[in-house]
This record gives sequence, C-alpha cells and structure tokens, in this order.
Amino acid sequence: MTTTPSALLTDLLDRHRARLDAAVEACAHRTFYSAFDESPSPRVYGEEAAGLGRAAFERWLGAEFPLSTPGASGTVATERSPYGFDLGVSYPRAADVDALLSAARGGMRAWRDAGPDGRTGVCLEILDRLHARIFELANAVQHTSGQAFVMAFQAGGAHALDRALESIAYAWAEMHRTPATALWEKPGRGEPLRMEKTFTVVPRGVALVIGCNTFPTWNSWPGLFASLVTGNPVVVKPHPAAVLPLAITVQVCQEVLVEAGFDADLVTLAAEQPDDHLAATLAVRPEVKLVDFTGGNAFGDWLEQHATQAVVFTEKAGVNTVVVDSTSDFAAMCQNLAFSFSLYSGQMCTAPQNVYLPAAGVATEDGVRSPAEVAEGIGAALGRLLGDDARAVELLGGIVNDGVLSRLDAAASGEVLVPSRAVTHPAFEAATVRTPTLLRLTADDAEVYETECFGPVAYLIETSGTEQSIDLFRDTVQRHGAMTAAVYSTSGEVVDEMREAALDAGVALSENLLGGVFVNQSAAFSDFHGTGANPAANASYTDGAYVAPRFRVVQSRRHV
Amino acid sequence: MTTTPSALLTDLLDRHRARLDAAVEACAHRTFYSAFDESPSPRVYGEEAAGLGRAAFERWLGAEFPLSTPGASGTVATERSPYGFDLGVSYPRAADVDALLSAARGGMRAWRDAGPDGRTGVCLEILDRLHARIFELANAVQHTSGQAFVMAFQAGGAHALDRALESIAYAWAEMHRTPATALWEKPGRGEPLRMEKTFTVVPRGVALVIGCNTFPTWNSWPGLFASLVTGNPVVVKPHPAAVLPLAITVQVCQEVLVEAGFDADLVTLAAEQPDDHLAATLAVRPEVKLVDFTGGNAFGDWLEQHATQAVVFTEKAGVNTVVVDSTSDFAAMCQNLAFSFSLYSGQMCTAPQNVYLPAAGVATEDGVRSPAEVAEGIGAALGRLLGDDARAVELLGGIVNDGVLSRLDAAASGEVLVPSRAVTHPAFEAATVRTPTLLRLTADDAEVYETECFGPVAYLIETSGTEQSIDLFRDTVQRHGAMTAAVYSTSGEVVDEMREAALDAGVALSENLLGGVFVNQSAAFSDFHGTGANPAANASYTDGAYVAPRFRVVQSRRHV
Repeated sequence: MTTTPSALLTDLLDRHRARLDAAVEACAHRTFYSAFDESPSPRVYGEEAAGLGRAAFERWLGAEFPLSTPGASGTVATERSPYGFDLGVSYPRAADVDALLSAARGGMRAWRDAGPDGRTGVCLEILDRLHARIFELANAVQHTSGQAFVMAFQAGGAHALDRALESIAYAWAEMHRTPATALWEKPGRGEPLRMEKTFTVVPRGVALVIGCNTFPTWNSWPGLFASLVTGNPVVVKPHPAAVLPLAITVQVCQEVLVEAGFDADLVTLAAEQPDDHLAATLAVRPEVKLVDFTGGNAFGDWLEQHATQAVVFTEKAGVNTVVVDSTSDFAAMCQNLAFSFSLYSGQMCTAPQNVYLPAAGVATEDGVRSPAEVAEGIGAALGRLLGDDARAVELLGGIVNDGVLSRLDAAASGEVLVPSRAVTHPAFEAATVRTPTLLRLTADDAEVYETECFGPVAYLIETSGTEQSIDLFRDTVQRHGAMTAAVYSTSGEVVDEMREAALDAGVALSENLLGGVFVNQSAAFSDFHGTGANPAANASYTDGAYVAPRFRVVQSRRHV
Repeated sequence: MTTTPSALLTDLLDRHRARLDAAVEACAHRTFYSAFDESPSPRVYGEEAAGLGRAAFERWLGAEFPLSTPGASGTVATERSPYGFDLGVSYPRAADVDALLSAARGGMRAWRDAGPDGRTGVCLEILDRLHARIFELANAVQHTSGQAFVMAFQAGGAHALDRALESIAYAWAEMHRTPATALWEKPGRGEPLRMEKTFTVVPRGVALVIGCNTFPTWNSWPGLFASLVTGNPVVVKPHPAAVLPLAITVQVCQEVLVEAGFDADLVTLAAEQPDDHLAATLAVRPEVKLVDFTGGNAFGDWLEQHATQAVVFTEKAGVNTVVVDSTSDFAAMCQNLAFSFSLYSGQMCTAPQNVYLPAAGVATEDGVRSPAEVAEGIGAALGRLLGDDARAVELLGGIVNDGVLSRLDAAASGEVLVPSRAVTHPAFEAATVRTPTLLRLTADDAEVYETECFGPVAYLIETSGTEQSIDLFRDTVQRHGAMTAAVYSTSGEVVDEMREAALDAGVALSENLLGGVFVNQSAAFSDFHGTGANPAANASYTDGAYVAPRFRVVQSRRHV
C-alpha cells in the first residue's frame, strides 16, 4: 500500500483536528485551554515516563548529537549545566552560511505547495512527538537554563507546547482568512463580469529563530512554528549555553518532515561558538525574511535597526513594576510577591523588579505597614518558601550564568532589606543556587531602578505616595519597557488609575494577586506575553500581528 | 437635548452598520462588493451633483484652503494641473515638527478610549461625507494627477472609498479578534482558579501617510483609515503636486472628529515645498510608529531601511509583465492590451510594461502571428481606442509631470513599433496628452526592460520561446518587483507554468483577459493590490498583515 503525500497530510490534520479546533476557539475567546498536561505525575504520564526521559537525556551527555547541518564544519560543545557539570554534547558547527541558507530554501516550494492544512497537520504532529519526549526535554531545559525540574517540565515542556499550539492556531486562522478560491461577479448592463480567483499562501523566505539561555523552548517555539506553518524554512540558532532542547526540537521537526515527504533541511540547527556572531551574520542576509529573537536589549535593538530586509519579532527586557498602595490581605500579598521573586531566581523576563510603595506606608487589614514592615513581611514569606534547602531548590533552580551572579553580588553593596542566601542543592553539590535579595531605594535612585537587573534582585522603592508611584511606573515603562506590571490596592480609584497608566505604558497589568496566579506567569491562549507596545518587546505571543506578516497571498484570476 | 459622546458614537456605527457588515463579509470571501457607485451618471448622483462638485472645486482655485496645521509657518501653493493651469490653492506650510507631532498626540487618549466600534463609526461617517463630495474630489484628483474625469471619479472617488472601507473592515475585524473581556477558569483540585481579563486596543503612535502624485486618494486612504480606525493620529504628507484631494480629506476628517467630540488634530495636513524633505524628517521621528508610503523605489527603500522605529508599509514600483504565448482571440487580446497601455497613459503602478513573446510568433485562432504582426494588432487597437482626440483624452488623461514626458521622448530613439502621438485636448488646450508607444526589444536588452519606465512606454520583447519568456518573467520580477502580471495562452500547461512562476515571483497573475477586466485594475474587497512578496511593495491592500501591526492589545487581569 502506498500513501500519497497529500493523503498522508490530510490524515495528519484529521488526527489533530480536535486539538486545532479547540485551540482556535480558545484564542478567539482567550479563555482557559491547555492541550498538554502540565503535571509530571506518573498518574498522567505513566510510571515509566520520568525515568525513560531522564535516561534519554543522559544518553546525550558527552555524545555527538545526530544532526547534520548543511555547510557545517567541525563541532561545538558549549553547554554546562547550572547544576554544575558539563553536558559535553557536540553539535555541528555552522560555518558556510551560503550553503546553510541554500539548503534551507531547497525544500521550500514543496512545503509551500503542501498548503496551510498540510503544513498545519505536520506541525501538529511535531508537537505530538515533542510531547512524547517531554521528560527528556524537561531534563534538557533544566540542565541548560537552570530551571528546577518541575518548572522545566511545565514552562519548558507543557506550557511551551501550548504556546507553540497557540501560534499554530493563530497562523492557521490567519491563512484561512482569505479563501483558496472565489467567484467574483460584477453586475453590469448585460451579463455580469465573472472572474474565478485563486489565492495561494506563499512564504516570505528563510526564518531565523534566535534562542535564549533561560527559556530555550518556551521563547523559541512560538516563532519557530508560526514561521514553519506559514511555509517558511526555519534556521534555529540556539544560545550556545542552551542548545540541547533546540537540537531535540530540530531532530523531531526533521523526523516528521521527512516522514511526510518533505526536505529535512526545512528546519536546521545552526550551533556556534559563543564568539561566532552567527546570529548577526544570518540576520542581515537577504534570504532571511523573518527573525524571531529573545534576549537582551542591545542585540534586540540592533536587530530591529539592522535586519531591515526582514520582519523582526523581539522579546527583550524591561523593568517590571509593582505598585503597592494598600491591600486587604497583607500576608497573602507578601507571599505572592515572594513567590514571584523566587521563581527561577527571578531569571524571568516577567519577574517583578521595582516595587513602588508610599514612604508613609501601606494600608492593610491590620492598619498601616511601613516600608520596613513590608520588607519584613516579604522577608518572612521568603523564609517560609525558601527556608528548607531541599524545597528551596525546587522553586529557585540554579543561577544560569556568571553575569547573574555578579549582579547579585554587586547588589549586596546597596541598602539590603532582605539578604540573598546561598543554598546547597541536595542532589547537585556544584549547583549555584541563591535566594532573592530585596534592596531599599527611594524615588531619587532612578539610575538604579531604571535599569534591568536580571536575576534575583528586587527593589522596594519609597515614593511620596501612590500618585508618584504610578507616575514613576508610567514614565519608567514608557522609556525602558516592561513585560509585566502589578498593582495592590483596595481603592477602586487607584486600580483605575493604574489601568489607565498601564494602557499609556502599554504593559499588561495584574491586579491584587493574592492566590495561585503570579505576575510572572502568563497562560497560553489567554494571557498575551508582551504587548509590543513598549520598548521591552515589539511582538506579543500570540496575536494577529505575530502571524500575519509571516506569509503573503498571491492571487491569479481568469474569466469564467 | 444633549447627546453624550458615547451615544453619538453608537449612533454612528449603527448608521453604517449594514455597510460595515457587508464589507467584512466581502473581505472574508473576496467576492464582489462595492459600497460607492462608480457611475458619475445623473441617474445615480442627481442632476446637480456634477455641476455643484465642479463649482466647489473651482472655488478653491487661487484661494487659501481653510485648514490650520500646528506649527505651520506661512503657506505653500505648489499645484499645477496637467491640463495646463496653476491651481493656486495655498495651504499652511508645515514647519515646527515638534509642535505638529505634539498636537497630533494631543487627542490620542480620548480617541483610544472611543474603542474600536466608536472609532469605526467615526471613520465610516467620514467616508460618507467624502462620498457626498465625490464630484469635488474627482475634479481635484483630475487636476492634480492628470487622470481623465471619469477615471478620477472612479479610481479617485468611488474605488478609493471602497478601498478605504475595505481597510476599515479588515481593521475592525482584527480589533475584534480579541474579546474585550474574558473569564478564565483553570480547573484545579478544589475550586477553579478564576480570573477576569480585560483586553484594550491601544494605538502604536503617530501614523504618517505619504501621498503620491498619481493616485492621491486611492493610494493614501487605505493606510490613513487603517491607522486612524485603530487609534492612531495621522499626519498626512501630500505630494506637493497633489495636495488638494488630501486637503479635502483632512478637512472632512476633522469636521467629523470635532462633531463627535474629538480633537481635530488627530488628522493633520503637512504640506510642504518640494525641497522641504518633510517626509524624511517626519518618518524617522520617535513619535512616528507607522508609515504608509506610495511612490518611487529609491525613497521607499530608504524608508524601509531608515524608519526602523516604525512599521513601514510601502507601495513602490516594478516591471509589470505580460507573457504572450498564444490566444484564442487575437483581436480581443490586442484590444485588451491596448486599453491597459492607454489607461491614464500608463501612469499606473499596475500598467503593463514588458510583453514577452516568442520571436517565432504567437499561435492564434488564425494561425501564427509574428511579433511584427502582434505590434500591428496592438497598434491598430490603439488607433481604434485613441484615433479620435476627444475620445482619446477621456482614456489617456494628461501627462502628470515632465519626468514622464522626457522618458517618453527618450524612448523614441529605440526601435519604435508604435509611435506616440501628441493629442490636443478639446477642452484644455494647454494639457499635455500623449498616446502610448510600443518599442521592440529582444531578450538581450535586459538593461532596458529591467528598469521601470513609468508612463506610456511598453516593450515587445522577443524571446527564444515561451519557456524563456516565463524564465525572464520570474527572474525579473524576483529581482525588480512587479505589481501585476498577465499571461495569454491557450495551453493549460503554459498557464500552469505561469501560475507557478507567479507564485515564485510573488506577483498577482491575470490569465487571458479578453473582455472588460484589465490587468491594471484591481477590485476592492476581492483583488489584492500588491502582494508584499516582491520588491515592488512590502504591503498589500488589504490583508491581515496590513492592519494587524497598527495597534496593540493591552490586558489587565484580576481574581473574581
């Protein structure tokens, strides 16, 4: 029995159709939806899954990863786990960019001709296969980013898959916004003018995805799949310290592409030595028409200014802000903030940094609390969360690199309200684990709090009152950007003012989070990640603007 | 009786709701729709409309146009009709760009707060008021672009209104893709986590619209209304030779905005002297986040490369191509091509220029016709269309500027198959009117046919056969761009090859046009104008990519 490629493709879409439909529906209503279970529990994934995934990960250590990159020369092995060991996985080192881009374009026409539904079926199948390797991916994410295992499983696995599905759903809907054919009949004096029209989705060109160290999958997959499903070949340029999760990704993409009859090089891995500057070289090549970048502002801004032949989507950084005015539940507020500071040691582009509060104190259910008392409350909550090393490491994870560590060390020279503490990891002795520190600043210390201090450092900033807090929030975010903002207030008026300021500043606002939702977490299909409306990012996961520029529609027409 | 602004806005949307719904529906199916009658007949518009519109136009001549532009200093009067007289209308000369942009931003928050439906109602009302002045606009377009009156009425009036409505419909749908509110409930062990979320459409910043000389309304309105309806203030920078149609546009926008309670300066006119370089100054200002440009490649490419703080939409130029392989109706083909060459003297970015055909000739219903016979056939058709001066001027219009005239004169030194002829306009003695010329080239003359020769110049290019014709088509368009392409062939195989080549080249293809549809015409709501997939344009009227990046969505969320 032979299966024609198109029948195979139809099968693939049919197989995943219910999931696609549910995702499209959730996107349209931004309601709760999740296609991939976030619980690593054996009850969900089976008794063996965790062990098998870990073993699969361990088999990569010290090995040559079986991918061939066109034009590669030699190999690189650049990864060291924040838990204290070298991964020693080697990957082809991208070298001849002409050869790489030419190979990437080789399968483009057949991929274009697969059509929106054919490509969507393939991409959904890839997600399914990635899901089957979720424990292996979680280990890979843990030991490149330093995330604790459960977080790596969730953010790096299940939630990343959901975000990928979200972007595929948006792209699928966008591609179907124009019908494949139309009959145009213009009434006239006699017979109507009648034209049959054909509309074909065509790709833009090669898409470049530039991965980051901290969220190699979560931040790369939305762009990767949005570009791939719209017909573009994708070159994946991982951060040298977080290659493995994306190498596995590329392997799975190639496996499914080849099975479905397409060219493997539609998705390639372009690994490099840290000083190869491969991203900058690739990003300005004329063949490259789409760039997705997550990382620091300097290179993100450079891309926006120099890769003018491409559409550039950036997720950079900013100064995430909390305005504390008053609260109905002081302990819950402190607990919620302490959790947000602690999660992955604040190494999230969404982690709060600047907490503005009135020098005169914060009204609570038990009267006014001074800034010192707020610091104490947060310190106590941190103590409860992180007092036990074994539990602490599961929240904190490891410090991802020396840059974070030196910023943390430098912060100790400030006015420390809550000191950072070194934590010993019970399983990984050499892991670098630190609890967050909280520093006291005043509104006058703009030169400190207007800069992002990526890592476990937060500032309690005393202002003349909530009015000044809100003004500083609006102004700082407009100039320096933010991925998130939060407000605590029992006053409807203050919350309204913060909403207004957040609209002006173009940042998402979380109001009075006192329970199990945290400002640094965004839910796929419902919360937008980034707005594109402030300097921290020019794109948002996922909206129409994130997918629509990734393809074009070419029409033909004829009389009928 | 007082009407609250929001009730007024609801009224406006209600008033135009049926038109909006019909437009949204047409866009979704790309079927025939038109909201504004293209016939200037008294039966449609009444006996008085034409005379009143002409009188309204004539009242502007020599007068000061009553618009105030913030930061202006003195006036400019830069327009001369291609029909041979100075318009003498004076406009404020934009001078202080800080003041202009600051004023533009002044009304932004209230406009944002009007919401998608409120703004849509206002924009649809503006279209209605522009429609009421369609004869005045047609005269203004005629005497700035040089278009013949009926074309100015249609392309500059009714079709421009349809294109504006199309962009509003796309933007409205895009803004409603995200709901205003959502209830997110995440199932858990106990009570679900429940969040109420609010999603607000926010503008990007100031939008700059850079108008062109030949289609001051048709090419400016889509971007203008797409930006305005999504919440952005718009600065309209007209071509110095075609200010009046956009001055009337701005006047109408301001009139409706003020009536609806908004700031007039949400839409401003920035007129200039030809050497003021105002577009370049404005385009790179940090306040400017959106740029819509129609015009030449040099400045369009400059904008794409330098206005990196903005999203830049360009409609530039290219080499529009016809591949002639064979035809079932030689006379109809010649007639159709002759009309396309003649319409507005080929001064359309969609007019065909390069006609590739086999040196061995073209198979027709009466046997093979040699290239010389094809030239004769086209020449004869041109003679029938343009032999009578009084009829000819209604198709040709006037030559828009000296640049076109000198290119036409220079072309006369080539191998002329059909010469150009000076036509005397019966009503405007000083008008510059010319019929198109057809030149013979061969495939070797790439240095000639790879450059756009904007105006009434077309090339009959002899190739070794249709295979070479298609190769040249694909290659030339990929490198130099095109807005349109056409094929004549009775062979299904050849048509398929052209479709494939057109997909590769990213250009819209018209097949075997033998009747009342012409390659240089695109129908709003159905035909895309430009694809964004080749160097002639980076945007398309109108698709999702044309509207989605013009706004952002900012959310807030809270437990409920």
